[in-house]
Parts: sequence; C-alpha cells; structure tokens
Amino acid sequence: MAQPPIRIAISGALGRMGRQMANAVRADARLALAARFHRPGSVGDGLVSRGEALAVADVVIDFTTPAASADLASFCAERGGPALVLGSTGFDAAELATIAAAAKTVAIVRSGSFSLGLNMLVGLVGRAARALGPQDWDAEIFEAHHRHKVDAPSGTALMLGQAVAGGRGVELDAVARRVRDGVTGARPAGEIGFAVARGGGIIGEHSVSFCAEGETVTVSHAAGDRIMFARGAIAAALWVAGRAPGEYDMRDVLGFGAS
Amino acid sequence: MAQPPIRIAISGALGRMGRQMANAVRADARLALAARFHRPGSVGDGLVSRGEALAVADVVIDFTTPAASADLASFCAERGGPALVLGSTGFDAAELATIAAAAKTVAIVRSGSFSLGLNMLVGLVGRAARALGPQDWDAEIFEAHHRHKVDAPSGTALMLGQAVAGGRGVELDAVARRVRDGVTGARPAGEIGFAVARGGGIIGEHSVSFCAEGETVTVSHAAGDRIMFARGAIAAALWVAGRAPGEYDMRDVLGFGAS
Amino acid sequence: MAQPPIRIAISGALGRMGRQMANAVRADARLALAARFHRPGSVGDGLVSRGEALAVADVVIDFTTPAASADLASFCAERGGPALVLGSTGFDAAELATIAAAAKTVAIVRSGSFSLGLNMLVGLVGRAARALGPQDWDAEIFEAHHRHKVDAPSGTALMLGQAVAGGRGVELDAVARRVRDGVTGARPAGEIGFAVARGGGIIGEHSVSFCAEGETVTVSHAAGDRIMFARGAIAAALWVAGRAPGEYDMRDVLGFGAS
Amino acid sequence: MAQPPIRIAISGALGRMGRQMANAVRADARLALAARFHRPGSVGDGLVSRGEALAVADVVIDFTTPAASADLASFCAERGGPALVLGSTGFDAAELATIAAAAKTVAIVRSGSFSLGLNMLVGLVGRAARALGPQDWDAEIFEAHHRHKVDAPSGTALMLGQAVAGGRGVELDAVARRVRDGVTGARPAGEIGFAVARGGGIIGEHSVSFCAEGETVTVSHAAGDRIMFARGAIAAALWVAGRAPGEYDMRDVLGFGAS
Repeated sequence: MAQPPIRIAISGALGRMGRQMANAVRADARLALAARFHRPGSVGDGLVSRGEALAVADVVIDFTTPAASADLASFCAERGGPALVLGSTGFDAAELATIAAAAKTVAIVRSGSFSLGLNMLVGLVGRAARALGPQDWDAEIFEAHHRHKVDAPSGTALMLGQAVAGGRGVELDAVARRVRDGVTGARPAGEIGFAVARGGGIIGEHSVSFCAEGETVTVSHAAGDRIMFARGAIAAALWVAGRAPGEYDMRDVLGFGAS
Repeated sequence: MAQPPIRIAISGALGRMGRQMANAVRADARLALAARFHRPGSVGDGLVSRGEALAVADVVIDFTTPAASADLASFCAERGGPALVLGSTGFDAAELATIAAAAKTVAIVRSGSFSLGLNMLVGLVGRAARALGPQDWDAEIFEAHHRHKVDAPSGTALMLGQAVAGGRGVELDAVARRVRDGVTGARPAGEIGFAVARGGGIIGEHSVSFCAEGETVTVSHAAGDRIMFARGAIAAALWVAGRAPGEYDMRDVLGFGAS
Repeated sequence: MAQPPIRIAISGALGRMGRQMANAVRADARLALAARFHRPGSVGDGLVSRGEALAVADVVIDFTTPAASADLASFCAERGGPALVLGSTGFDAAELATIAAAAKTVAIVRSGSFSLGLNMLVGLVGRAARALGPQDWDAEIFEAHHRHKVDAPSGTALMLGQAVAGGRGVELDAVARRVRDGVTGARPAGEIGFAVARGGGIIGEHSVSFCAEGETVTVSHAAGDRIMFARGAIAAALWVAGRAPGEYDMRDVLGFGAS
Repeated sequence: MAQPPIRIAISGALGRMGRQMANAVRADARLALAARFHRPGSVGDGLVSRGEALAVADVVIDFTTPAASADLASFCAERGGPALVLGSTGFDAAELATIAAAAKTVAIVRSGSFSLGLNMLVGLVGRAARALGPQDWDAEIFEAHHRHKVDAPSGTALMLGQAVAGGRGVELDAVARRVRDGVTGARPAGEIGFAVARGGGIIGEHSVSFCAEGETVTVSHAAGDRIMFARGAIAAALWVAGRAPGEYDMRDVLGFGAS
C-alpha cells in the first residue's frame, strides 16, 4: 500500500526559489503541497500565515534569508515541529547557534548547496581519497565557471580539496598547490593541485582526478540549472520527515554521514 | 618505529607479469622480495623451489594459469600458509571450488582485474547508484577501446552496469539498453544505457554518468599501462598479510566489501 | 574611425526568438535596431509595417515559419534588398526554390542551426578528416541529449558523420557503424562509428574523435542555451551586410565555404 | 596502377627512434626501406655508409642530434638531394642557418614535434580562433602531464596560446593569463587562460576551449605513445618526396600552411 505523501510547507513562497520549490513539490507524487507562506502580511495567491502553514506540514522547506531561517527554526522548536529543510546561506554565529539550539528539538537539514550531484561528488571524492593514497595517486582538482566569477578556486573546489585531504588525514593548507607557473620542479607526492578555467556562461564544472602511473580515476560534476537545488531540497524533505531531532546536512541525506 | 617489510614470494617468476611484479616489489619499501619461483625444474636467475619460496614468505603473488593457481592454493592450505594474491583468470568450476576450499585455511585475494582504479570505479558507481535513484537520475555507461577489440560492450562496462543495477536493487538484464538507433522514443526511467567507441590504440576508458535535470555526476577510469595491475597486486598483498582465512576480492581491499 | 552600425530589422518580432534577437541587437554596438515588424495587423510595442521596416534596414533577421520566410525573401528580391538572415526550418521544395530565386538578387544566409559553435565543429571536423585518413585514424562520433529526445543518432551527429565522410571522399552510408553490440569483430579501417547517450536535461553534446595508435584528436561542442542562436544570427548579419547576391550558410560565415 | 613506393633512408639507425622508424617504414606499403645508416664507422645490422644510403633514397628521415642533422642537410644540398625529414630538436642559430641554406636546394620538413595529432590540434585551434573572436568567445587552454614534468605551462600549451593569439592578431604575452588565484575579478574579454594539472604517468593532454554564453567548442589531443612520432615522420616523408626545395613544417604537411 502506498505511503501517504509527506506534507510540505513552503516558506518564502513568493521568492524565486519558493515558487520553483512549490512547482517541484506539486510534481512529485511522494509529496503534498500542504501550505505556502511568506513574510507576515504577504497575502493572496493562496498564502496562509506561518502558524497555519506549520500546523499542517510534516516538513517546511525554507530558502529565504539567514535571519528569517533562524527565526523559523526557533519557532518550529518551540512548537515541537515540523522538521526543517533550510537552504539559506550566509548565517552569522548567532544565527547558527539559534539553529543548533532548535535542532535539539526538531530535525533540521541545512546545507550550503542542495545539489545532490555536488554533494555526491564530495562524498565520492572523500571515499576515493581514503583508498587511493598519496604515495601512488596524485589528486588534481579542476573547476570551470563563467566569466563573471571574481574569485578562484571556487568554494566548491576548495571543499573538494578538503574532502581529499580529510580522506588522507592531512590538512589541505599544508598540501594545496594552487598555482603552477614557470619552473615548478617535479610534483611532490601528497600535493593536491588546483586548476581553474573561466569562460563564457559555464554554470559550474568540477572534477577531481586521482592519477597514478598507468591509470586515472576521475569524478566530476556539471551544473546546468537551479532546478537541481529544488530536487535536492525534496530529497532532504523526504529524508528528514519523521527523523530524530538533530542538525544534518546533505551528506547525511546521501548516506555519507557515518562513513 | 617502522614495521618490518611484508615478505613476498613471486610465483610464475619468469613470465612477463612475474618479472614486472618482482620489479614492483623491489621498488616498494613496505615489501621485501623474499623468493621467486617458476614451475618445477625452472632454474637459474635466483629461482628457488616452490616449497623453499613459501617457507620464507608472508604472501605469494601468483599471475600464472588457472590450474597452477588452484594447485598453489591447495598447497598453501595444506601447509597452513602463506596468504595468496591470485591474478590468473578463466578458472573453471573445479578450480574455483579448490580455491574456495583453500580459503578456509588461508587468506586469498582473487580478482578478475587488479587495477585499483577500475575496482574503485566499480565501488564508487555502486555507491552513487544507491543514492541517485532512477526516478530522477539516468545512468549511462560509455566505454572506448582499441580497434582490435572484438566484442561490445566490454566486460568491465557490463560489470559497471551490474554495479548500477545492484545499487538500485534491479536486474541489469531487465533495464539494460545496449543499442539506440532510429526512432527510440523517449528514454524510460530506470534504463541503464550503454555506448561504445572503438578506435586507434585506446587501452581502455570507462565512464558512468548519472544525468538529472540540471546536473550530471560522472565517474570515469582511463587505463594506460599494465603497471596498474602490479600496483593493485601490491596493495592486495599489503592488505591480505596476516588476515583471517577467507576468499576476498579487490573491493574488500578497497573497503567496499561491507558497504 | 568607427564604422556606422549595420541597421537591423527584426521579423517575427513578437515571437520568442524575435524578442531575444531584438535584445541581442540592442546589446551589440556594431548593430542598430532599425525596425521591428510582425505579421500584417500586429501593432503596438513599436512595431512598424514590413515595408517600412525594410526601407530602413541593411539586413532583416527572420526566425518565423517557412512560408513567411519564403514570402519575405521574394519581397526583398522584388524591391532589391535588404539582405536576409533566415532561421526558419522545415522548408518544402517550393519554398526552397523561392528562396533560391530570391538569392539571385539579394544576399541570403540560411542555416538549419545558427549556433556558431556547432557550425565551427562541423567545419573543423571536415578539415581534420581531410588530413587524418582512414588508414591510421578511426573516426568516432558521440552525442548526448536529454531523456525526451526520441531519435538517435541526432541529426547533428549524422551531419558530423557526413563531414568526416566528405573530408575523406566517401559516402557516409557506406561506412557508418551505428550499432556495436555482441561479437563485433575487429574495427574495419574507414568505419565511422556512432555512440549515443540519453539522460537528464542534457541540451546537446557532440564530439568527434580521430583515434590512432598512440594519440587521439577530439573536437567537441556543448550547447547550453538558445542565446547561441541569437549570437550566430548576429554574426551572419554582420557578414552578409553589403555582400553580393547569393545563398549562403553558416559555414560561409565562418570562412569554411571555399575550403 | 599503383605508384612505386617512396624509397626511405633512415639516419641514426641504431638509435631508439631510428629503429622504430625502420619498423614503421617496413610496415607501410607506400614506402620501401632503401637503406639505413648511423654515424661513420657504425657497421653491421645491414648498415651502409651515408653516401651509399643517400644514393638510393627519395627521402632521408633523421632523428639524431642538431649538429648531425645540420651536417646531413648540407651534405644533401651539395649533392642535390634527397629530400629530408628532420626530427632533431634544440638547434642553435648556426645550425638553423645551415638548414635554411640547404633548403634552397632540397626540400626539408623540420618540426619540433612530428605528432600529426598535435599539429592538427594547433592548426584547428588557429582556424577556430580566426572566427571565434574575443568579444564573445573566451579561450582557455588546459594541459596535463606526468608528475615528473618540471615546468608549466607546457611548451605545447604555450604554442596553442600563440595559435589563438595569432588567429586573433594579438600578442600572446599581452593577453596570457597564466595564474588565477584569490580575488581575480571578472574575466577580461580577450584573455587567454592557462590551467595546468600534474599527476601520475599522464603522457600529455592538451585542450583548448572557446567558451561563449550558451555554448563551448573544445579541441583536444591526448598522447599515449611515441609511435605517433614515427607516423608523423612517415606522413612528412610521403608529402615531401618530389617537392620543390624549401623549408617546411608539419603544418604544411597537414595543409595549414596557406590558410
């Protein structure tokens, strides 16, 4: 017998991500769009109040602002639910503390990126790094983004570097090689190399190669469209519904948490 | 304090792989080349008898023939060791039974391919398939080999297909799509696609992509040189030395056994 | 001294492509958006009649319907200009004849795809095929598209196959290998192989590899966004302005016409 | 009626490349191995004197040392032939002058790399750069080599940069971006970017991407084996036999000279 659908409330329902989330929830038979709310006073278009929304939801999906997300987490904790999927970014220390406190009472999935593919990339890279050691395997990270990006390497590339370093039990800063230009000398074992391309409208490409004599293993991710974030938020909502209180991230959703 | 090196005996020492293994063992400080033997009656070049070789070894590495490998496994089992790394391929049922029986007494790593990279690819693909389900993620396998290869898809590509199918709890035969030509219709969810290229001297390339709306995750392997097999055999020898009796494969060596 | 901008009229100005074209023309300092028109009777939003538009334009860009484009070509020919960039597809024989007749009087660029990158890919592949002959170099074509595509290989992949075959002076049908499955035997020299992937939302990827013993050359294209068609149409408009009457395609615009 | 085979003399016949060249010539029905010679006094293994060798050859293939190659060129010029394929590298100015003088009398193909694929890559990149201008298309060069390489970017990567710059009529030094690290700002139009990876036993990979909004064109080359140089030398020999005096390179052999 089919399970009843998980009931979803959408926070920030008038924002771009809120609208996209609502469409994605409507299109997924495992979910029911139970309610949509925006900030107090926002009306029309089927919006309800935050309290009304929470009363009918198993999970709230919230891509808004750090302050609004932290406030929502407190509110859910006080009333004992529902579970939360928080996609805001840029939290300050006080907001993080608020969320951590709320996570003692409700289950919260929070992540800097809800892309399932990107989080899978990070998880697989960490897994590979544990077995493909620095004596034989040289780890090289490549990333490409559009011409408007103003920093390098990307934050995700650095996160991948940390996944390699963590899998090998070293500090990234001690082994990162961010530039190769001129007379570099031979590559030291253990180095983690970064290479960067910028051009056109590339939304985001990342790859990590483990190169040995005679063979190379590569894990990569190509991003194309923001819809990937909605899909990841849905996966998080399905995973977090009914789960024990705690603060989780997408690696938990993908099952890398314990590994 | 450094551990004493694992003592290695090389079986089939006069064969191409035997010679390459000996060189690889000599170059690795974690190992000591304790003895080399070939078939009875082979002498010179520092060869000793099989009995003499086994008496001084922690692990025997054997890339010979199915019959010789099975006989070696029995012999090791009777005398209570040493551990075995078996790289022969093409065993028949009787030989496999002999090896299984021997594995009750000694630890044996046996694999169709000792490439660490290829086994890592299979492990990562299985891991990804468990989380990237068929509703959203389309799995596509691509392989390329040299112009002399006479069958398609490659055995490794089919093994990757099984890793995807296994991760999803389905049978590969039920979902494999080996050909797309003409009017195919839209791609059914759950299908596992295969694509094949043949050309030049390509030694072996395999990739598995998980494609969703807006993002793609790809895991790939490129083979370049037989030295990768020697490296994998060494990793297996380091792993199996002192281990409990049993029959293991390279996925155990890479830590995928329990996952 | 800077040249005066080329004056562009947009046909089908109320369609999606017409609007995108207008934005692209406005953003390009080498061009001036001189007029916009739609079908007779369409008014507002700054639209003028077709006759008024043509009177002030050096080039008309038209992505409408085959019938409307053919009629526009006749009309331009009768009045002696302006030049035309025609992006409609699916012309029947009579419409093609109308356009060919008009091209005796005015310069017309017509193409099945205005992507500069895709046309560059075709041109480079033809160029490479002339020098990388079938004795040593195996040509393999790969394409990937989204899960909704219902045929295989893609029309562009077949066009690439024709570029290889043309560069080698053979017929594609005689050498195409569209399927490899099971016992294929070794690859015959001269074969042109096709491989197909379908998954997720891939907008369109094409690559052609020339594989020899010991080296491989690959030319590839990845499509991401319809904006590439607007950019190609602008390149065509800049190229065709003031040019002698004739029917041209994007390969002429890219300078491959004479090669 | 089949043409008679081109008669080849191999210079430096006892060197590694000389032996490989001889095997490649023997395997090619379009060529006849007419003679093999090494330095004066080298005997046995079917070797003849330089004078004897040149007397029976249409083309001499020489991969030796700069001094020996320059001397050979003078010698051929004095006696009016045969044509030359020179694969030595590291000529000084005097040796280059000697070769240039000889090229007034005999036809000489000289190249820093005889890989057909690599030269094709350079030619295609130059061709693409002429049409894919810096306003819309960002050129990015990536190269990967084994861990033992001590400089970056590779000489070939810089040559590719020059091919892009040349196709655009600019100086590479004025637009090269060899490092991106930290706060880089947005990518300026016209920049030519370099990215470098080092790892394992990668023999040599180069790619050049032209990235625009919504599409990317990439041309790449992967090297696997020195046999590619023998194949290129054979192509050069076939091309230069009977050709007018002059100094040529592999781009002429591939037909890019005049373009």
